[in-house]
Amino acid sequence: MNARFVPTKRTTLKRLASRASYDRKTIYEILDEAFICHVGFIDSDHPVVIPTTYGRRDDILFVHGSVASRLLRNLANQAPVCVTVTLLDGLVLARSAFHHSMNYRSVVVFGKASSVEDRNEKLDAVRIISEHILPGRWADVRKPNNAELQQTSVVKVPLIEASAKIRTGPPVDEKADYNLPVWAGVVPLSTVGRSPVADPRMPSYLQTPAYVQPDRFRQ
Amino acid sequence: MNARFVPTKRTTLKRLASRASYDRKTIYEILDEAFICHVGFIDSDHPVVIPTTYGRRDDILFVHGSVASRLLRNLANQAPVCVTVTLLDGLVLARSAFHHSMNYRSVVVFGKASSVEDRNEKLDAVRIISEHILPGRWADVRKPNNAELQQTSVVKVPLIEASAKIRTGPPVDEKADYNLPVWAGVVPLSTVGRSPVADPRMPSYLQTPAYVQPDRFRQ
Repeated sequence: MNARFVPTKRTTLKRLASRASYDRKTIYEILDEAFICHVGFIDSDHPVVIPTTYGRRDDILFVHGSVASRLLRNLANQAPVCVTVTLLDGLVLARSAFHHSMNYRSVVVFGKASSVEDRNEKLDAVRIISEHILPGRWADVRKPNNAELQQTSVVKVPLIEASAKIRTGPPVDEKADYNLPVWAGVVPLSTVGRSPVADPRMPSYLQTPAYVQPDRFRQ
Repeated sequence: MNARFVPTKRTTLKRLASRASYDRKTIYEILDEAFICHVGFIDSDHPVVIPTTYGRRDDILFVHGSVASRLLRNLANQAPVCVTVTLLDGLVLARSAFHHSMNYRSVVVFGKASSVEDRNEKLDAVRIISEHILPGRWADVRKPNNAELQQTSVVKVPLIEASAKIRTGPPVDEKADYNLPVWAGVVPLSTVGRSPVADPRMPSYLQTPAYVQPDRFRQ
């Protein structure tokens, strides 16, 4: 597998090209860190963007949902799709309004979605999505039965055309503005987990597993 | 203005209808809390989803960017657009893999984007976006000059067709699964700000403004 994705017309940044990355490792790290993606598809000539969870196995993204959901119904049959993942890392405060920005890492994937029909591949995809969100959880839970698998649609999107866009660091101001008496810098933002809240219907003798402790969640 | 958006074919949830809301106040609160939206549009018959900041004035959403950006070029001229905002509130751990879920609040807006050409409305939109992200910041910074305004495209999307989808609370399991010895509950997730990092090029006598203190950022 190539270490870099080949830039295409769609994935070539026209502006701020220095923020672009086609490095496979960089792109996979962003995909592996986020919890949700935003999936774009076309329904009756109109764009639709739906947030959902996902998982990755090598160069394939998996998305799942109810067989009845608009998202999953639209994604079968080689539908063109755009999957975007965004990690917001900070607010960038410049001395001028114009140069305010954000620090972020985002990935945009263009491709065609196809439905996963094979039972074993479907089960594997569901496990991969679960382990993507919460590594270690799959071993503890009741696995999907046949009826549940039949109610679940899984689609896959091959990672062929993908790019990352990354901004880091302090603001960049106009030369003259550096003399202004305006506070400038970055407010770092993180997604963090807080103390897990046990289901009130759960018997109290069950111990809280390590994988839900807050230190496991910090983006 | 009606207190509720009128559900349309596109905004009517076919599944889990109990999670849907068309209440204007609920929808505005979600829009006002998030930092970024994901904008979907169609470019050469393919869906494209781009993360960006935004602002709201009453029943209008504003998005801005460089005049050269693909996003802004595509959003002018009444292009059909979908703007989605997602706040992730927690991971929901059920006893079965199938019933795992997330707690979230999301808004989906369908509409047509049009470009803001009037100089004063453009400046107002840029201020609204700034104040949406960081209330109080606008008063402190150098305002956009004419050249900067000319380099900035602003588009607006009227809030006519919008819906929210919200999940809260503990997992919901199959009756028989409540007897399983599996920890179940919710891991709450938040976006938090950390201590602001001053630009190394800033003179140290400038005080850190209150609006960048971490307690201002908690989603």
